[in-house]
Amino acid sequence: MGAQVDEHQILINGQPCAPEAAVVSVFDRGFQYGDGVFETLAAVGGRVREREAHLERLALGARLLAIPEPDRQVLDGELDRLARELGKGDRAVLKVLYTRGAGGRGLEPPESPLPTRVLMRLPWPDHPPEWVQRGVRIFTCRTRQMSGAALDGRIKSMNQLNHIAARLEWQDPEIAEGLLCDLSGRVIEGTVSNLFAIQSGVLLTPDLAGAGLPGVTRRRILELADELGIPAHETDLYREDLQEMEELFLTNSVIGVWPIREHEGRNLPQAPGPITTRLREALEASYG
Amino acid sequence: MGAQVDEHQILINGQPCAPEAAVVSVFDRGFQYGDGVFETLAAVGGRVREREAHLERLALGARLLAIPEPDRQVLDGELDRLARELGKGDRAVLKVLYTRGAGGRGLEPPESPLPTRVLMRLPWPDHPPEWVQRGVRIFTCRTRQMSGAALDGRIKSMNQLNHIAARLEWQDPEIAEGLLCDLSGRVIEGTVSNLFAIQSGVLLTPDLAGAGLPGVTRRRILELADELGIPAHETDLYREDLQEMEELFLTNSVIGVWPIREHEGRNLPQAPGPITTRLREALEASYG
Repeated sequence: MGAQVDEHQILINGQPCAPEAAVVSVFDRGFQYGDGVFETLAAVGGRVREREAHLERLALGARLLAIPEPDRQVLDGELDRLARELGKGDRAVLKVLYTRGAGGRGLEPPESPLPTRVLMRLPWPDHPPEWVQRGVRIFTCRTRQMSGAALDGRIKSMNQLNHIAARLEWQDPEIAEGLLCDLSGRVIEGTVSNLFAIQSGVLLTPDLAGAGLPGVTRRRILELADELGIPAHETDLYREDLQEMEELFLTNSVIGVWPIREHEGRNLPQAPGPITTRLREALEASYG
Repeated sequence: MGAQVDEHQILINGQPCAPEAAVVSVFDRGFQYGDGVFETLAAVGGRVREREAHLERLALGARLLAIPEPDRQVLDGELDRLARELGKGDRAVLKVLYTRGAGGRGLEPPESPLPTRVLMRLPWPDHPPEWVQRGVRIFTCRTRQMSGAALDGRIKSMNQLNHIAARLEWQDPEIAEGLLCDLSGRVIEGTVSNLFAIQSGVLLTPDLAGAGLPGVTRRRILELADELGIPAHETDLYREDLQEMEELFLTNSVIGVWPIREHEGRNLPQAPGPITTRLREALEASYG
């Protein structure tokens, strides 16, 4: 599984900071309003996974918010700097936060924003190994996925309070994730993951046109399904539909694939199922 | 009109900080996720307006987010400290930010949060005086009011990105405010204000049961209408309904009442209308 790297490392606008000295101005709009975007990347053995896809989404988010785009070379250099000390098999999480910086009058942004860039190298989360091997128990949140946000579904914003409200709904440490439905009862996503289901050999995942964040690993899984000849559709999946599914799994950039072995009182004792396993193996192989 | 107080004053967890030294940890969940609530209060001549209502809403927001409630006596002392130097007629804005503090694993909050409390005394905004006297021009945003948020409409959260997206839609400095409609075309609120309309002598304001933040001044206006015998209803107001209204105005805690004199190409040349004026005078009188 590789070692974890426990030491936090932080770069603020390129400057290394000890964790206790890693601070931003209270005037930063990231703090005042959540006026920024972020990405969470996996770094394994000195390599940053899916760098291209994450940094593209970060740049798109900045553009949609009219924040000057981050300099790609600078970001690359800083990611490399945080990742390069990782030995073969070492794992860490890299988080990039990118805000509009300070200024403006109330909500009105400043004319010439000076963005704030915070890169953090964080320890790999210590989830139980059986969550990957045997699967996870999940929960359905009462908190609804918001819809109607102009930017929702396209940017990974620093406004995470609705998902925190969902995360507050369970304390049981044996529950790995909670699903959010929209007001129509369609399942949209997990608090930090995307959902996949398998029905009659077909891979299904919620259509995120109206709400929800299409993850980098979600996109990779859809590409791999295509390569493997597994038919796949983005579709409306209602909460009750999940009871009919042969296999269920979750994805995100750090966890990779978590098979689901218990959902709303129903056991999926064969988890991970055969298609989940094929896709997970293909995903791992794609990381090299 | 009173003097403005330009000097910023900041207290972080009770400690006075020079503006350039007023910082929070990058690990603060207020920065990471917008995991907190805020209030904006008007301080005029040493007095903090509507203190009770603002601090009640702040405490309610904390409770709903399972953040330990702020100590009321501490907040009172800090507000007084920021307000007491204001001379008779001096005006300033007080902003209180209250976050869950640092910690937790991803979205999952820490078991025993140590909240962060930031109080700021900011200059009164320099809006043109005719906006109060003669009224404002407003704009209808394409950005939609989000609906479905568990906590929306009850807490004033540090997640303001949707309203920033709305605020980015206009640059014309002569436009004072933008209105947000929900996906059904109901007008919900302005980016930083609540809306009122008058039709056949009846005061109308959007019903905020599904979305939107019921402001402190909105509540006060409804109370004053009751005292003055002006019939008032919270109701669904569609965008096109506004074209029929005899008077329109906006409220918030700092601006008080802004009559609307231009809305979607329609002039309301008599602005401020008679009921707007009566309510504004009553509001000002209620502040003593």
